[in-house]
Parts: sequence; C-alpha cells; structure tokens
Amino acid sequence: MQNKQIVLASRPAGMPTTENFRIEDTGISQLKDGEVLVRTLYLSVDPYMRSRMNDRKSYIPPFGLNEVIVGGAVGEIVETRDENFQEGDIVTGMLGWRLYSVVKASELQKFDPKFAPITTALGVLGVPGLTAYFGLIDICNPQAGETVVVSGAAGAVGMTVCQIAKIKGSRVVGIAGSDEKNTYLTAELNVDATINYKTANLKEALAAACPNGVDVYFDNVGGEISDAVLQLINKGARISICGQISMYNLERIDVGLRPQPLLLVNSAMMKGFIVTDYARRFAEGVTQLGTWLAEGKLKYAENIIKGFENTPRAFLGLFAGENLGKQLVKVAEDE
Amino acid sequence: MQNKQIVLASRPAGMPTTENFRIEDTGISQLKDGEVLVRTLYLSVDPYMRSRMNDRKSYIPPFGLNEVIVGGAVGEIVETRDENFQEGDIVTGMLGWRLYSVVKASELQKFDPKFAPITTALGVLGVPGLTAYFGLIDICNPQAGETVVVSGAAGAVGMTVCQIAKIKGSRVVGIAGSDEKNTYLTAELNVDATINYKTANLKEALAAACPNGVDVYFDNVGGEISDAVLQLINKGARISICGQISMYNLERIDVGLRPQPLLLVNSAMMKGFIVTDYARRFAEGVTQLGTWLAEGKLKYAENIIKGFENTPRAFLGLFAGENLGKQLVKVAEDE
Repeated sequence: MQNKQIVLASRPAGMPTTENFRIEDTGISQLKDGEVLVRTLYLSVDPYMRSRMNDRKSYIPPFGLNEVIVGGAVGEIVETRDENFQEGDIVTGMLGWRLYSVVKASELQKFDPKFAPITTALGVLGVPGLTAYFGLIDICNPQAGETVVVSGAAGAVGMTVCQIAKIKGSRVVGIAGSDEKNTYLTAELNVDATINYKTANLKEALAAACPNGVDVYFDNVGGEISDAVLQLINKGARISICGQISMYNLERIDVGLRPQPLLLVNSAMMKGFIVTDYARRFAEGVTQLGTWLAEGKLKYAENIIKGFENTPRAFLGLFAGENLGKQLVKVAEDE
Repeated sequence: MQNKQIVLASRPAGMPTTENFRIEDTGISQLKDGEVLVRTLYLSVDPYMRSRMNDRKSYIPPFGLNEVIVGGAVGEIVETRDENFQEGDIVTGMLGWRLYSVVKASELQKFDPKFAPITTALGVLGVPGLTAYFGLIDICNPQAGETVVVSGAAGAVGMTVCQIAKIKGSRVVGIAGSDEKNTYLTAELNVDATINYKTANLKEALAAACPNGVDVYFDNVGGEISDAVLQLINKGARISICGQISMYNLERIDVGLRPQPLLLVNSAMMKGFIVTDYARRFAEGVTQLGTWLAEGKLKYAENIIKGFENTPRAFLGLFAGENLGKQLVKVAEDE
C-alpha cells in the first residue's frame, strides 16, 4: 500500500503559505498488539493549528519541523490488532496528515455512522460543536431576551454558538466576513442580525444591531472587532474567548484596547478556554448536541475540499475567511 | 451652628487639582420626621471617586457641578427625629463632604465603637475590607501554595487582600510604589515578596518574585503593571479587576496589551466588580473580617490627615501614591 504524509517544512513568519508544508512518500509500519491501521477518510483543518506551527509555548506543544502535521480526522479501520476494533469500523481521533496511520487503538473513538453522517464527528458533534456548547453554556450561560454577539459566526464553532443561543431564547447578532455567509446565518439559522465586518462601519453597525447593548460575547476572532463589541457590553456581561484568529499570524504582541476598564465598570467577566478543559463532560455535550440535531434544532454546514494534496490549501483558506461552516478535506471515499 | 461644605467647582481634565474643589459656607436645614443630624467625624477619600468627577457614564453617576462631593463617612448623631437613632450614636454611610449633614436615618448604619475603632468602619470593616474580601475570595478563590500578585498592595484594599491571601496559605507578591510601603508589607504583613514599581525593572522583578508563575492577580492599578503581570499567568489563572487607578486620569481610551490571547492559551478568567455587587453578602464579609481582626490575623494601617479643609488634598494624594493603608480625614474629635 502506498502511503503519503504532509509535514511541516518550515515555520511561517506571519501568514503561512503552501511553502510551509511538504508532501512526502512514507511507509506503513508493522502493527503491534493494541494497534490498528486506519485509512483516512476526512481531515479536519482548524484555526488553532496555526499556533502549533510556531516554535512557541502555547496551550498545546508545537509541531516538530519535518514532522507530520496532526489534527482531527475520521477514518476506517483496515487492519486491527486490538479486540475492541474490527475491520470497517469508523473511528475519530487525532491523526497525522497521512493516507494511512498506524495508531494505538486507545487513542481512537468509534463513531456509529447510523447515528449521524460521519463528517459530523469533526463538526457539530466533534470538537467544534463541543467548543461551541461548553464555551457558550458554561462560560456565558445566555438567558432568554439577552443579546448574544458572535464573531466568526459563519465558522463551524460560530454557527453552532448562534443556534444554541437561539435555542436559549437570546437575541443573536452574528459577525462574519461576507454577505453570502450572513445571508446563510439569517435565512437558515434564524440569526436576528448580522454584520459584514469587511464592508460595514463596525461601530455603527453594532450599535444598530444591539440597541439594548451586549450581554454575551462569544469571541472567535479578537482584535479590533472585539474592541468594538466590548464598548457595548452591559452590566454583568460574559465574554467567552474561544479563538483569536485575527491574531494568529501576528509577529508582535497584540496591542489595542485594554478591556479591563470596561470589565470593571460593568462587573463583566471574560474567560478563555480550550475544549479539553471540559473533557470530563464531553458525553453530556455530545448527547445534547445529538438530541438537538435529531430534533432539527441544530443545522450544520460543511465546506469540503477533495484530495489529500489540497489539505494545506484548505487550512490556509481559514485565514482568508473562505469557509462557511466546517472546513474538511475528503481524502478517500467512505465505502 | 456653622456649617461648611466642599463642592465640585470644575471638572478636571486629566489629573485633578485643588482648583477643582471649593469650600463654601452653608446652612443646616430643619429636620423632618425620619431624619437625623450627623456631625462628621471622619471622611473617607477613595480612588473610585475620581470617576465621579467626570461627566461620563460609569458605574455610579457623576457628581454635579457646584454640588457637594459625597463619599463614605463616619459621624455622630447630634439631633434625631428617628426612633432608631439616639443622640451620641456613631453611624456610617455615604455623606456629603460637610461638617454637619441632615440625612434620612434609613441611609445610615449604626457602628458599635466597642466592636472596633470607629475608623475601621471606613477601612478594614468597611468598603475597602469588603472589596478585598469579595474580590479575592469570590472571584479568585486562592488556594494554598498558589502565587497571588496584588497591585496597589499598600492601599487599604491591597493590604487586606495580601493578608487574606496569606490566611488562605498562598504565596503573596505585593507591588507598591515605595520601599517604605514594601517594608511594611513584608515586615508587618508577612508578604512573601514585594516590588517597587517606581524603581524596579518590572518584568525582571516579577519573574524573580514569581518563579512558579501567577495563579491569581488582584488588580488595583491596571496599565503597564498589569501588562507585565499577565504575561506570567498560569493555566487556570483568575484575575480580579478591582480598580484601574493608573487610568482614572487618562483623557483617552486606554491602549496597551490586549489580554485576550493570554486568557485564551491559559484558560484564564478575568472579572471586574464593584463591592455593591455583593451587597446581600456584606454581613458575611464583616463577620469574617471582624473575626480575623479579633484573632489578630488581620492588621490595618491608616493615614489620617486632620482638618476638613484638607479633604481635597488627601484625595489628590491617592494618585501620587502617598498613602500607606486607608486614607482618612479627621474632621472633628470623637467625644
């Protein structure tokens, strides 16, 4: 069997390019006891992976130079030396960007394709869905009638946040980077108001969209968008810091509005998180998200690029704001 | 009886001066039912009062131009038309900067001078003590062995925070503006390490004082001191935004290190508050602080300026970092 992998060829200075990645031929090692061979079906590309390309301390260690990139994936077991997995099982986990991976069975979760389409394991029922669920519910606890602002609203996390906030009865204002995305948010997800940050006067548009101020802000982007939202927060506002995509390619320390005075006068709270903070509660999250999905209360969108060799390009597209919903790469057919 | 009051003569641009205040002769109105006449004994001057000098929305409304300044005070009842108060009772409440005040009895609390010295009603058992207690315990919940950094550590709030954190078993690092203050913190309050922000290289001094990083930051000052502390926070850090004294005299929006990326990678939490957020729990706070005081676990320092006419000067001294502990003005003798 021919195998290929994509490695980190060089560390980016600022915005990454395809030059930072390299496709290589590679082999497949002999299975040991407790290992399985997985054929990659879908690879997930996610904004957080940008920080792993730097040689800097962050919440997860950096990718090694000339080593395989690792991310969320769905695959199929093609050979097994573990009693818990059978050939043909669909599994999810953190896999290398490879056509085939030899991994410890204990690092994989089974996914039942009858439960939901297998791509949802990387989206609404996977890391992005759980990120939205815990980051919104646990940190912000949105109430009926409150105004919830979501930046990066048309991404995989953002659109799930918008819908959960609607389920909770909040007024939802989504910020995204194209009119097409915003039309999706209002027409398909019933978001109450949207702002195109690339064309709108952000301050005026936010004031118009949030006549009663901002009670909850779910922040995927950071930077000047956040500066504008924070100036509208109400007493007792809650701010979930989920991502700072506008910052990931900065080479300097981020300077801008210090939010502390606004937090002070509004007794407001701001908290960062990573989804693994809630690892013990993942079952609760998947169950709730799966229920909403089955009830038709939760929709999802996917942007699927075909071809293993296009994985770096799919990743880079995240920073150009190209994706509506979850960005995936289809590596092989699910048979 | 002769009466005097201090009014806001003009709004300051930047740092206030004595020119912004004016002493006037004034009268004493006839008592109505439910009112009492209070002779002012001590006036409290506090950093938060600076924001009330601006004509800007904040968490409390601005002082009116040519109207009396209002703040925390201790006084003695000299005439009463309320059955709950007798002549000679010691009371605390928000009073105008006046020698004598006619106030509704319902706006005052009695203070038993046998319980503790009456000035503690404005300090360790009053607003500064309660601010320290709830801002540290409720927001930060410091644990034994954790590192707690306190800015404005030698102020009335800060030194109480330092001591409560020590009671909880934390390692405490205090930041203050003079070696004299820092000597007090280490010698009298057993603070583990101190930094003089006016003379030290803040970044190096913090790194040396916090070899295990920062788990809790109680922030009274904001600005560049906070920027330096935040760069050392650990996973799961809690930051209480109590004051931003370095910002109160700024005429522009505060620009500096955006903390969101640091909160994100550390799953850290930052919350602003004002002591009245905890109004329903004041009894709990006073009881706990009073117990620690009686047990000798809690000390306090006062800086008392004599003379009603010196009240503006005492207030201005807060921004020059002149006070060690609670800054008070003694207006009249307690007989």
